[in-house]
Amino acid sequence: MRNARRAPPPPPPQAVREARGGKMALGGCRAARCGSALRLRRPALRRPYVAAGGEEEEEENEEEEQRQLLELCRRRRFLRGGAEPRSWRSYLSGCHPGFGPLGAALRGNLAAQWWHSALARREQVFAVDSPLHGSPSVGAPQARDALRLLSSETLRRAVQEPAGPALEEALGSAGTLRETLLPGVLAQYVSCLEFANKRLPCGLAEVGVCFHSVPESELHNKNFRRIGERTTSLLAWFSSPRTAGQWLDYWLRQRLQWWRKFAVGPSNFSSSDFQDEEGRRGFNLHYNFPWGKETIETLKNLGDTELLEMYPGDRSKLLGRDGRKNVIPHVLSVSGNLDRGVLAYLFDSLQLAENPLTKKKNSHRKVLKLHPCLAPIKVALDVGKGPTTELRQVCQGLFNELSENRISVWPGYLETTQVSLEQLYTKYDEMSVLFMVLITDATLENGVVQLRSRDTTMKEMMHISRLKDFLTKYVTSAKNV
Amino acid sequence: MRNARRAPPPPPPQAVREARGGKMALGGCRAARCGSALRLRRPALRRPYVAAGGEEEEEENEEEEQRQLLELCRRRRFLRGGAEPRSWRSYLSGCHPGFGPLGAALRGNLAAQWWHSALARREQVFAVDSPLHGSPSVGAPQARDALRLLSSETLRRAVQEPAGPALEEALGSAGTLRETLLPGVLAQYVSCLEFANKRLPCGLAEVGVCFHSVPESELHNKNFRRIGERTTSLLAWFSSPRTAGQWLDYWLRQRLQWWRKFAVGPSNFSSSDFQDEEGRRGFNLHYNFPWGKETIETLKNLGDTELLEMYPGDRSKLLGRDGRKNVIPHVLSVSGNLDRGVLAYLFDSLQLAENPLTKKKNSHRKVLKLHPCLAPIKVALDVGKGPTTELRQVCQGLFNELSENRISVWPGYLETTQVSLEQLYTKYDEMSVLFMVLITDATLENGVVQLRSRDTTMKEMMHISRLKDFLTKYVTSAKNV
Repeated sequence: MRNARRAPPPPPPQAVREARGGKMALGGCRAARCGSALRLRRPALRRPYVAAGGEEEEEENEEEEQRQLLELCRRRRFLRGGAEPRSWRSYLSGCHPGFGPLGAALRGNLAAQWWHSALARREQVFAVDSPLHGSPSVGAPQARDALRLLSSETLRRAVQEPAGPALEEALGSAGTLRETLLPGVLAQYVSCLEFANKRLPCGLAEVGVCFHSVPESELHNKNFRRIGERTTSLLAWFSSPRTAGQWLDYWLRQRLQWWRKFAVGPSNFSSSDFQDEEGRRGFNLHYNFPWGKETIETLKNLGDTELLEMYPGDRSKLLGRDGRKNVIPHVLSVSGNLDRGVLAYLFDSLQLAENPLTKKKNSHRKVLKLHPCLAPIKVALDVGKGPTTELRQVCQGLFNELSENRISVWPGYLETTQVSLEQLYTKYDEMSVLFMVLITDATLENGVVQLRSRDTTMKEMMHISRLKDFLTKYVTSAKNV
Repeated sequence: MRNARRAPPPPPPQAVREARGGKMALGGCRAARCGSALRLRRPALRRPYVAAGGEEEEEENEEEEQRQLLELCRRRRFLRGGAEPRSWRSYLSGCHPGFGPLGAALRGNLAAQWWHSALARREQVFAVDSPLHGSPSVGAPQARDALRLLSSETLRRAVQEPAGPALEEALGSAGTLRETLLPGVLAQYVSCLEFANKRLPCGLAEVGVCFHSVPESELHNKNFRRIGERTTSLLAWFSSPRTAGQWLDYWLRQRLQWWRKFAVGPSNFSSSDFQDEEGRRGFNLHYNFPWGKETIETLKNLGDTELLEMYPGDRSKLLGRDGRKNVIPHVLSVSGNLDRGVLAYLFDSLQLAENPLTKKKNSHRKVLKLHPCLAPIKVALDVGKGPTTELRQVCQGLFNELSENRISVWPGYLETTQVSLEQLYTKYDEMSVLFMVLITDATLENGVVQLRSRDTTMKEMMHISRLKDFLTKYVTSAKNV
């Protein structure tokens, strides 16, 4: 991984074909890691054809499992519920009340990893930021179908007058909300190229919210379109036309590797190629949800069309240096939907196992085995037997130490209602907490705490002074696998 | 600082009065740090009354300095320029093309520090995320004046039919864009309270973009309102009504300390109190720009009004535990404008000194002395005399090492045009780069690099292997001052 990131020339095309075939070596060890003691039930979710007769039952099982995951994600505040019951589809489409605190933290971690990967070639990549709405003049040709932003007053004034010019003026003056990050990023090309001393290749990266109309077929009321939001990542990569094709293959490989790196089941992340109406090449990256594949990221070789449209007139300021030549670059757009990424990893990480407490049907123990880098909470602190005040003080000290070292902690010791250890394990497994630390009167005597792992369910004793380093190394080494 | 953050009970009121008086001890050492060798010209900017006759000249000087800072901020990509020349006012109002890469990074660093400070009481604070637009039903009473979000098609359809019900329906179906973070955060109170096991006090924190109409008086065309954006931070703090007043004073002190902590001139950050129409108490925090004070953050004790409005009906689910009692909490809102914060620190950090190269009038050496935590780029790597290929390889290795340790680096060694060291210093001082590292053939021989400081302009030699630790400690210790 490290070597791949540092090597400046794009890889030869055959490396990419391997990536496309889904035979990446990378995620393998993570998949193995999760074989562990739990009986995996996920493969059933992926089996599209089963023997006749079993098919219906299989489908029911799948739906039941989807329902259970949805319920878990709401109970543990990965997703927000809202008043009405919602389906996975509404979360997919971006028409939902948003993520809960754990979901928001998960997406935050995903975005941080995205930045890390986009800026791996940091020498050449600038992080930029652009406004969410544009003035009417920007992107005028497509703007007729855009999402319009008006003050109620402007709208009312326009409608009170006879239709026609007043409406056109109102529409003309209305801002438009961005539906992709691309125009905002391209608008900074010339300024950043100058800043980068005109060297190619270079990249501009942004993460931000975009808006979209939800297709009418998905709605009850066909008169009005619903508006969805999604957090989007974009890397716009500017290279000489000569190398653009190689770069597309390079980024395809990078991005697919990246998604698979955090997955329990890497093979559920795949890619397919496409050509648009103008014959431009691109790839979609998918996650294989139980109901089928959904696109989570799109790579496309845009050529110079959008760039020339953005800067009509003087072409000379678009010129970048490719070795000794000056060229107008081709643009690769690598655009991901981080909200869908979160949903993909929620499905990817769910593991069901027989519940050791109750052997009833459908009462499986549920564990969200999110990658250590992505898990919103790394460790929970709880107190066992012993003097409450002293134990809490130990916890608070530990909480501060870990928090200041950027390890996110769940303050379980603040809980005052009595719950059994088994109940705590269940709760933390569903919250995807990597470790639970139990502080008892033994800790006061000899400084030893009990550490229980989400992934192995094993417990071990550890001196409290070693915790910080242990947790930091655990997360760091998981990242470098 | 550390003690203050860890102490659970709110501080006694007298501590706060001190804070209001502007006599905080905290920023002092930073102000001293910058006295250094440079001749400070900032105080002139702040002197409102000068002897008659000199007044006009003074004003001209001030305007000239504002213009120079604006020009610097555009040249060094803190601010984006756009086609038309813009004034500081347009950046203040949020009607501008946004920040450039360095400005975006500065705001990102400011937001990271805000999170650090909001989550200092992390045990009790959840980071949440809420949608940027709401469905029409949410917040219906105020929605008549809100910013409306419509697809062009919906709008066109509504206007083609005779005015009246069609318009009302269009308006009714239109989403509204958020103008503050508060409703979205309050909507998560019940869910998060449950998650926090009903303990008070607790807090919900969010950073995100909000929209606003720009008052007509500031516009050329009075028919249509312009729409501005700003990145906002919000901490909503829920406490028992009994302690809400104390908490307001506590947070006022915390927030004022926080702004001053990063300032060269802490006394330019101040506060004033206010009461709203309903007699609710609050404070504005200001920065003293050359043209006058502007609000950068607002604290307000909202009582339970907004909370009860958000959850009409069952009051019991609002109840949190305050010791042994169950109470409906009062809400403190602590809401900052991070975009204005960026502008404030740009003004705060500008230092002008005689240019040692040219002694001409108005050719001052300009340094942006941003706080080490806020500076977008911590170190620039450049090559001096020696074999180009080998020196570049050293730079690339160093670049990767520093980047992986979250130290942002400027790859000056990629620059191919010849510039003098003085020109480089000028450039990096304007970019607020903390240190410039020069790698020469001496480095190849004995591993020693030259390190030049932005703040002292002193140069020292250092072994290349010590750089990472030195830079990390420099930034960390600046944070803990």
